Amino acid sequence: MGIKVYKVGGNVVENEDSLLRFCRQFASIEGPKVLIHGGGVMASAIQKELGQHPIKIEGRRVTDEETLKVVTMVYSGWCNKHITALLQAHGCNAIGLSGCDANVITASRRAPKLLMDGITTVDYGFVGDVSSASVNVEFLTELLDLGITPVLCAINHDGKGQLLNTNADTVASSVAAALKATLYCCFELNGVLKDINDPDSIIPTIYEDDFQNMKSDGTISEGMIPKIENCLKTVKDGAVSAIIRSADLESDCNGTEIKICKN
Amino acid sequence: MGIKVYKVGGNVVENEDSLLRFCRQFASIEGPKVLIHGGGVMASAIQKELGQHPIKIEGRRVTDEETLKVVTMVYSGWCNKHITALLQAHGCNAIGLSGCDANVITASRRAPKLLMDGITTVDYGFVGDVSSASVNVEFLTELLDLGITPVLCAINHDGKGQLLNTNADTVASSVAAALKATLYCCFELNGVLKDINDPDSIIPTIYEDDFQNMKSDGTISEGMIPKIENCLKTVKDGAVSAIIRSADLESDCNGTEIKICKN
Repeated sequence: MGIKVYKVGGNVVENEDSLLRFCRQFASIEGPKVLIHGGGVMASAIQKELGQHPIKIEGRRVTDEETLKVVTMVYSGWCNKHITALLQAHGCNAIGLSGCDANVITASRRAPKLLMDGITTVDYGFVGDVSSASVNVEFLTELLDLGITPVLCAINHDGKGQLLNTNADTVASSVAAALKATLYCCFELNGVLKDINDPDSIIPTIYEDDFQNMKSDGTISEGMIPKIENCLKTVKDGAVSAIIRSADLESDCNGTEIKICKN
Repeated sequence: MGIKVYKVGGNVVENEDSLLRFCRQFASIEGPKVLIHGGGVMASAIQKELGQHPIKIEGRRVTDEETLKVVTMVYSGWCNKHITALLQAHGCNAIGLSGCDANVITASRRAPKLLMDGITTVDYGFVGDVSSASVNVEFLTELLDLGITPVLCAINHDGKGQLLNTNADTVASSVAAALKATLYCCFELNGVLKDINDPDSIIPTIYEDDFQNMKSDGTISEGMIPKIENCLKTVKDGAVSAIIRSADLESDCNGTEIKICKN
């Protein structure tokens, strides 16, 4: 059976009711599967409680030493273990992992980056980038063969002792591509919608060519663009397919499949 | 080769220099090995920063819901992943685990306990107890056979979705007994000392019978008693041997072996 890789975002993880439902539903999915989760809202909340000031630039959290401690505590600690314990309770033999664990994902620290304004250079700190080549396919396959479900957060390492804060969507994409799996990006909507106010207006398939037009004519909202781009990259990098769908896994909606071309 | 189980306490883990040295030395130990670590000092510090009030009764942290989040973040998150990344950097293929991960250790929630005063009953909250029967020997053995080194913290689960705060010494003892390993309890001294001010006054072996006398005549200091009792229990429960020693693994001192009887 093909491997299924699920990505679930902070909005689902950080609402206890939706997390409980997701874990119950995810646990009952048959066949080899992997879960990648976020947790950014809770990280920002804890940062504020500790008197830190979360800074995001172009959607990425600037990660100094203190921020790295908090995101590692929240993603690798609370979120990852809470989810894993819930899955175990529903009969899914889950194992919560960060990239350093059995060297499952390595990341390279991001060099200071020139922003889109063409003027400002930003040092993101302990932020890393991952790709499908960074994924330890051998170990993940060993776990899947043992009937174990890896649960990954977006804390990875550089192999030289440094933990790095990475992006959960990119981690999910890299893992799905490396495992030649199907990627399911799960979130609070039913898929990519023609009309954000109409939950039934799901676009069943988006092809790369159409996507360019949809971006220009505004059919697709701002927030969906990086998700679709991430799915396109996932398929190009070797995944079987990539689908944007509801985090309610028992929903009748199949979501939106993102494809390269019509053949 | 026999399995070696190392326990390292908070004093070593929370001093960056001693942690770096320990990880470098631990990484170079040959043969199958497991590490169990603490992290209580950092947990108390973060609790205070978050405006919580750490409460310990008879050495155990009373763990309400908010405390459980903090200890899970600190032990399973920061400490566990930081140590694992450092070991990876030194060529040791470590995997950081909490009890929920692949169901590696289950714990049972502690019932409210009558204190030694015989009057007060205390509810420790989300505190659990573990034993050698709670250890998933099959999975730990699979990891060791793959050349992977498990790094365990003292956050475990009840199998019903609840994480539980447990005691790292008891976890180490349970794992060593279940794996029929040698337990090394590593700390800042060279072993059990006759004279706390003389680092060379190491008692090479303590037998259970002698221990009772040493307790009565005050040869052994208050703080060492639970460590020795933990080692005695470890050997009784099936470990090959149990040794209290320096966390400087390159030290010439062999530490103190704790034995049941002279045969």
